[in-house]
Formats: sequence, structure tokens, C-alpha cells
Amino acid sequence: MVLLEKTIKKIGRLDYKLMEKAQERLNNLTKPQGSLGRLEELAKLIVGITRNENPVFKNKVIFTMAGDHGVTEEGVSAYPKEVTPQMVYNFLRGGAGINVLARHVGARVVVVDIGVACDLKPHKDLVIKKVNYGTKNMVKGPAMSKNEAIKSIEGGIEVFEEEFSAKGGSASSPEKGIDIVGTGDMGIGNTTPSSAITSVITDKLVENVTGRGTGIDDETLSNKIGVIKKAIRVNNPDAKDAIDVLSKVGGFEIGGLAGIILAAAKSRVPVLIDGFISGAAALIAYKLVPEVKNYMIAAHCSVEKGHRAILDYIGLSPLLDLNLRLGEGTGSALGMNIVEASIKILTQMATFQDAAVSERIGKQSRMSA
Amino acid sequence: MVLLEKTIKKIGRLDYKLMEKAQERLNNLTKPQGSLGRLEELAKLIVGITRNENPVFKNKVIFTMAGDHGVTEEGVSAYPKEVTPQMVYNFLRGGAGINVLARHVGARVVVVDIGVACDLKPHKDLVIKKVNYGTKNMVKGPAMSKNEAIKSIEGGIEVFEEEFSAKGGSASSPEKGIDIVGTGDMGIGNTTPSSAITSVITDKLVENVTGRGTGIDDETLSNKIGVIKKAIRVNNPDAKDAIDVLSKVGGFEIGGLAGIILAAAKSRVPVLIDGFISGAAALIAYKLVPEVKNYMIAAHCSVEKGHRAILDYIGLSPLLDLNLRLGEGTGSALGMNIVEASIKILTQMATFQDAAVSERIGKQSRMSA
Repeated sequence: MVLLEKTIKKIGRLDYKLMEKAQERLNNLTKPQGSLGRLEELAKLIVGITRNENPVFKNKVIFTMAGDHGVTEEGVSAYPKEVTPQMVYNFLRGGAGINVLARHVGARVVVVDIGVACDLKPHKDLVIKKVNYGTKNMVKGPAMSKNEAIKSIEGGIEVFEEEFSAKGGSASSPEKGIDIVGTGDMGIGNTTPSSAITSVITDKLVENVTGRGTGIDDETLSNKIGVIKKAIRVNNPDAKDAIDVLSKVGGFEIGGLAGIILAAAKSRVPVLIDGFISGAAALIAYKLVPEVKNYMIAAHCSVEKGHRAILDYIGLSPLLDLNLRLGEGTGSALGMNIVEASIKILTQMATFQDAAVSERIGKQSRMSA
Repeated sequence: MVLLEKTIKKIGRLDYKLMEKAQERLNNLTKPQGSLGRLEELAKLIVGITRNENPVFKNKVIFTMAGDHGVTEEGVSAYPKEVTPQMVYNFLRGGAGINVLARHVGARVVVVDIGVACDLKPHKDLVIKKVNYGTKNMVKGPAMSKNEAIKSIEGGIEVFEEEFSAKGGSASSPEKGIDIVGTGDMGIGNTTPSSAITSVITDKLVENVTGRGTGIDDETLSNKIGVIKKAIRVNNPDAKDAIDVLSKVGGFEIGGLAGIILAAAKSRVPVLIDGFISGAAALIAYKLVPEVKNYMIAAHCSVEKGHRAILDYIGLSPLLDLNLRLGEGTGSALGMNIVEASIKILTQMATFQDAAVSERIGKQSRMSA
């Protein structure tokens, strides 16, 4: 609990003064004011987060955290749970969706075993932070102990901090190994705890926040909704206590990603929130410390129907809406590219003065010769 | 008219057979079927457009076409018309929004003077296809002659074809100098003809398709709406005749971009449509030959309110919604990056067999050892 408490305490405010300076610069670039919409808002936010007027994203990292779920024995997923380790190996070989999209945007993928149900073969790019061999079946009692819930969050914090300090040297801040980070998940069955968390924290009906995950049919969906309702009834999680919710109806990768989000905020690194599972992690982090919201950027809106409830609850507006529902960090990668574009607008565009372009009619005019 | 007619005649169908093959491959990649949503749809479309199962975007080009508008003398814009040539020079120096975003996505910007009201200083990166020194004031009669309307479209076709064949050598098709293209515009006052075209072709009230352009106040907006209504009344364009509409209430860059779109379709190159002005060009191209729709990808949905009417009329769904309203091709550049991501998904992801990942429960299972 010490690491978690220390991390939460160090999450500070945005630098509103520097954000005003960024806004002034944005207003003076050769375009009508505000005409680059969300790119301008993002650029300003990044300045406020990083306390850097000229941020450069040299080290872009996606954390893809993998865990298994005891609740899969209730038949809630279209895929067998062997797929979790199989996909971890796929990540390590570079063949998965997240590998392709991370390469596309120049990010590296850090794969973390935070709770896969078997021992994985060691690999130089695999970080082992295993809390346990999958969660327990939450229909029969808590998915994990409180201690495990805290350990999963602190595992995420540790993974972030090891990566943040280990790689050393970035253009925007020499001590940083991460300039921008994205969350990603892998875990067969993990939309089930995510729906449970969302229902409990946002106080929505289970039916309204439970979707088809990897693509289940009507019958399996109806079973899944029943399973989630039962898990909530059996465990009776306290919506006001994020650790209680995580331990009773959560997952290790969800806790781990909450840790990534908290650690990023503490270190003033902007964090892209991927889809529904990452959203559930964001809910946990947000309930622990609402200020963390300022450091989050919702990468996209997932097809998974509970995701909208999460975004509305926290008050985040997604950057993309491309009908994605893969997870892994795929939305984070695409969103990261847009955030990087926003920063280049701020730092690379010419001002009216630089370019000798006339300003608005009625404003002080600086005509070109 | 010969070049235009020849181009239109050569616009063919998508390759539906290859698209089916692409769909099979997409279904076999290590992800739940359809879970990458629009990325999968885009990849399939690009295969159908390019007739290439493994397209690679080596040559990415944004055409930013500049023209002036006689109607600016009616006080419809927040900026003086000197800004058109000033911004062309800004493009050529690399300081504008489109330069920053094109660099970000690895595209080159081809700047075209298709009708700027003054003579521009020669520059190695500036293509001159000037139809005339700006359009006439459309409140007093046609913005241009029919001959000029055709010349503007054919100018766009020529610019495309010169670039397409000139640079030679691309990974996906050795004779191509353009693998994917985006439209972009510059022209003070050009939301006014764009709203006029949109109103006439989509049969919507001028009020409902006219916005604030670069950021005009209520009074100027009200004047702008009156000006557009008057221009339509005075000229009485025939909604069924795209050339008539373009000549009476259009602009040279709008015609030029329609030419780019037609030439891209003829050469089986996917074309990103930027915002509202590019949308007006898309309307002209679509009215000339509806099949061109299959080659268009709507990059984003502009803040400019008429844009939605255009997208609905043609039946395009925008990739991005980032509150952009700058034009220049800025949305095209961001959209291009997403299209490229989609192609990498298709061509770089591992299949279930490659990765020894188990398929859905109930499907033939190929477990890893």
C-alpha cells in the first residue's frame, strides 16, 4: 500500500500558466483561431501535463498487460483461455494487431504478465509481475484478495517506473524513458469483470454495460449478464471503495493498468486510455484519485457498449470512433499518433509574424511586403 | 472537354473478387473477426481500389489547390484576400498546418495555383495551372465561364497525372508516383461557393449548409447567407448539371479538386476527401460520375455545417471527427495515416496458423503445442 499511497500523493495539478502560454502561441499560428479543433486542445493539455512548452515524443510506450480470469469457467467468452498465453507469445513475436499499430506510430510495446494462468517462457521483452495464476471465479467469491488488488496496481506502477527510468534520455526531458504512454490489455474473459466494475461504479444496469466481447451469441450474452449480476450480488462490492470493487469483481490486468495510469500522472506523462478494459482500469484509478482525469486522453470509443458509460462518468471525450473492439492497446496507438500531431502543430507551425500573413480584418494587420 | 470525358470513361468498378480474398485474410488474422472495425473495412476497400492484395503506400501526396473568389468583395470572409497568396508562400516554406501534418504522416504536399488573383513568384514546388485571376463575383453573374469550369477540372486531372507518372517508382506499383492521395484547398472566401454548391446539389436551404468559415460573426454570417441566396437566384444553376453548378457558383480550386478526385479514381488510387471545400469538389465529381464514390474516403467531418449534408448526400462516413475547420488538406493527412494503418493490419498481422493461436470455441481448433 505504501507505493500506491506515495504515488497518489504525488499526482499534481496541470500547469495552467504554461497552458495559457501555449494557447497564446496557438492563437498566433497561421490559421484561423481554433480551426484545428481538438488538435489545439490536445496540444495545450500536453503542455499542461508535461510542464514543457516544446514537448517531443521520443519515447512512446504501450503497456499491454495480460491476465486470466477464473470466471471464464462460466462460459462467458467465445475463445478458450489458452488464447491469453498464446497471444502473449504473438505479441512477443510482433504479429499481433498492437505490434503492427505500435510500429506504425513509432511506439514500443511492453508486454506484462500480471496474472496469466500459466508460467510463460522467459523472453527479453516480457516483464513478469505475476500477482497470481489468474483470478478466482467471481461468481463464487471475490476475484482476488484485497492484498492482491493492491499488488496488481502497484505492479503496474512498478512496471511504469522501471520503464520510465530505465531507458534514460529523451528529447523532451533527459531523465525520461517515457514521453507518452498508452494502455492495452489481453485476457480472455476480461470484458466480464470490466462490465461488472462499470456497472458498480457508474451505477448502471448490468444489461446496459455488457456487450459481446470477442463476439458471443445472444445466448452466451444472456448467460454473461446473469453471471455478472450474480458476481455483484454474491460479493456486494462498495462502489465508493475502488480497491474493494477491483478485488471483488476485477482482474489483475485491470489493476495493473490502473497502476500505469496513476504512475503516468505522478510522472506528468500523458496517458492514452484504450478501450473498454482500459476504461475499467481508468474508473478504478479515477475513484482512487479524481485528479488523474487530467492526465488521461480517451483514445477511442469502443463498440463494447459499457465503454460510453465509462467515458461519460469520468468526463472524457474519445478521439477516435472507428468501431474498434480488439483491445491490446490498438486504439491507444492510433490515438497517440493524433496527440503527436497536435504537438507538432504547436511546435512546428509558423506564426503570422514568421510567415508575413495578414491577420483577421479589423485586427492589427501585418501585411506581407 | 476531351480529357475530362476520357477520364470519366476510364473509371472502373472495384475489384470485388480481390476484396473477398482480402476479407478472408482479415478473418484469419489473430483477432476476433471484425474487431478492428473500420480499419478492416478500409483495408478491404483499398485492395478493391488498387487491385493489389499487398498495397504499400510509398508515395503519399496531398494536393493543396489555391484559388481566389470574386465574391469576397461582398464581405463574406473574416480575412482579406491577400491571405490566399500569403498562405501559398507559407505552404512553400513549410510553415502551414498542412506542411506539419503531411510531414507527420510522411506525405508530400503539391501546391497548385489554379486561380489565385495575382501572379505568384515561381518556386520549384509550386505548380501553376492558373485558369484565371480569381473567379468573378457570383452575385453579379456566373463565377466563371463553362469553358473555365471544364478547364479547372482538367487542370486538376493534369496535375494529378503529371505527379502520378513523373516521380516514377513505388513499392506497390512500379509505374506509380502516387499510391494514395488527399485533397486540400486554400482560398479566402471559398466556403461561400462551397455552401452554394452544397445547397444547390443536395437541395438543402442555404441557412442549413452555411457556416462561419474562418470565423465570422453573426452579422457577417447573415450577410453571407444573403449573398449565397442572391448568387443562386441570379444564376439559377441546374442541380443536375455539375458543370453548370461549378461555373455559376463554384471556384477554381473546387473544380481542380474535382479533377484530382476523378483522375485518382481513373488511376485506381484511393483519395482522401478533406473538409467542406473538398466536399463540394466531391459533390461535383460525384454528380459527373457516381461510381467515383467508391474511390473516396471521407477523412473527417468538418465543423462547417454544410459538410454533413455533403457526406450524407454521397453516402460517406467520415473517419475522424476532431472539430477541424482549417482545410488545406489537414484532415486528409490525418485520415491518410489511418488508411495506412489499415493496410499494415492486412499485410503485417499474423494469422491464427502463423501464430498457433486457438480459434473460437466451436470452430476448428488449431491449438499451439
